[in-house]
Amino acid sequence: MAGTDKTQNQVLGPAPLVVLAHPQLGENIGTAARAMANFGLHELRLVAPRDGWPNEKALTASSGAHWIVEGAKVFDDLPSALIDMNYVYATTARPRDMIKEVITPEQAGDDMRARVARGEKVALLFGRERWGLSNEEVSLADIIVTAPVNPAFASLNLGQAVVIVAYEWFKHLTAGALPFATPERSSPASKQQLLSFFASARRPQYPPPAFFLDPACSVFRAR
Amino acid sequence: MAGTDKTQNQVLGPAPLVVLAHPQLGENIGTAARAMANFGLHELRLVAPRDGWPNEKALTASSGAHWIVEGAKVFDDLPSALIDMNYVYATTARPRDMIKEVITPEQAGDDMRARVARGEKVALLFGRERWGLSNEEVSLADIIVTAPVNPAFASLNLGQAVVIVAYEWFKHLTAGALPFATPERSSPASKQQLLSFFASARRPQYPPPAFFLDPACSVFRAR
Repeated sequence: MAGTDKTQNQVLGPAPLVVLAHPQLGENIGTAARAMANFGLHELRLVAPRDGWPNEKALTASSGAHWIVEGAKVFDDLPSALIDMNYVYATTARPRDMIKEVITPEQAGDDMRARVARGEKVALLFGRERWGLSNEEVSLADIIVTAPVNPAFASLNLGQAVVIVAYEWFKHLTAGALPFATPERSSPASKQQLLSFFASARRPQYPPPAFFLDPACSVFRAR
Repeated sequence: MAGTDKTQNQVLGPAPLVVLAHPQLGENIGTAARAMANFGLHELRLVAPRDGWPNEKALTASSGAHWIVEGAKVFDDLPSALIDMNYVYATTARPRDMIKEVITPEQAGDDMRARVARGEKVALLFGRERWGLSNEEVSLADIIVTAPVNPAFASLNLGQAVVIVAYEWFKHLTAGALPFATPERSSPASKQQLLSFFASARRPQYPPPAFFLDPACSVFRAR
């Protein structure tokens, strides 16, 4: 796959879990798994997936992140899926009438990096495609994560919600280090080289070109 | 749709265009359009979409971002799609043997905000699903954008690549302002209230509960 270097497969360090509460479509479970693999997350938990489990469509849509789909654990209810967690981030696009702190995915990325580093088990919680998380589900979390979105079109695709939070996790984990950098450049040309270049570009050429640039009107004219 | 408030539909300001070079699947064009709508992008250009245009699957996958799919302009080749642009960001997961600056999506978000604010027309360029952008296509751009990813699983889904860059655009445009904030809280309880609460929790209750917590072994025992 473009850009993938299997020789760089690392031992995966501790990372947040992803918990999908009542996901509906296998395709979205698969793209969520792919997003997790892109950004160094590896444990997936599913609460009562609507279309049953295992799900062939999830495997296909994961585009090779099979170890995540096949390793997913299934739970009957959300409290069971969260029972061994120390800290849970609920993602939602809707305000809730709840006294719970609200942070951005970027703040969540920084916060979860710090928590995982000190050995906490943390989970990222995402709701069903049709209407997200219920208030009762959000109440099981410690904090709310929401992204700055167009208020007139606020509902994210499930896989895309996962990719944003996963991206912010990996960005903070790696301190933004890129897989590759700007190649080393030679120094800029000296002014002498530059002026020689301009002079040579101005010098009449033999045979003269059939067209020339008329400086008055910036179009090419036939000689 | 969860969290969507149609009454807040704003007049959309100037924003980067999204250019998909030779996209293969209608579904991915649709999820890219949905991601654009989530994060305030509204102009889509397609270079020679493989499965033709219009594409019913793109419309379905856009989950209501019809105005973007239906307003997409189709071009035969990439230079034509970029002809009126001032600045182009090429997204790629692969290093290129090219002297071109490489930046993160976050840096791109900040840079495009500044450019759009001073009236430049800027485009975000994404390649085909199978192998991204060719070197020739990248050479038409001004700068390369790449995300910090797991090097062993570096290839992003097309819609997910679009959502990350679109998210960074909107994050910088809105300076991270969230659609809703932590609700106002009452002041923390006074120490007197707190101590009274602890005292009342310690006080024996009548009738005594049928079970009590044995402090020695942390299990409930019948009285």
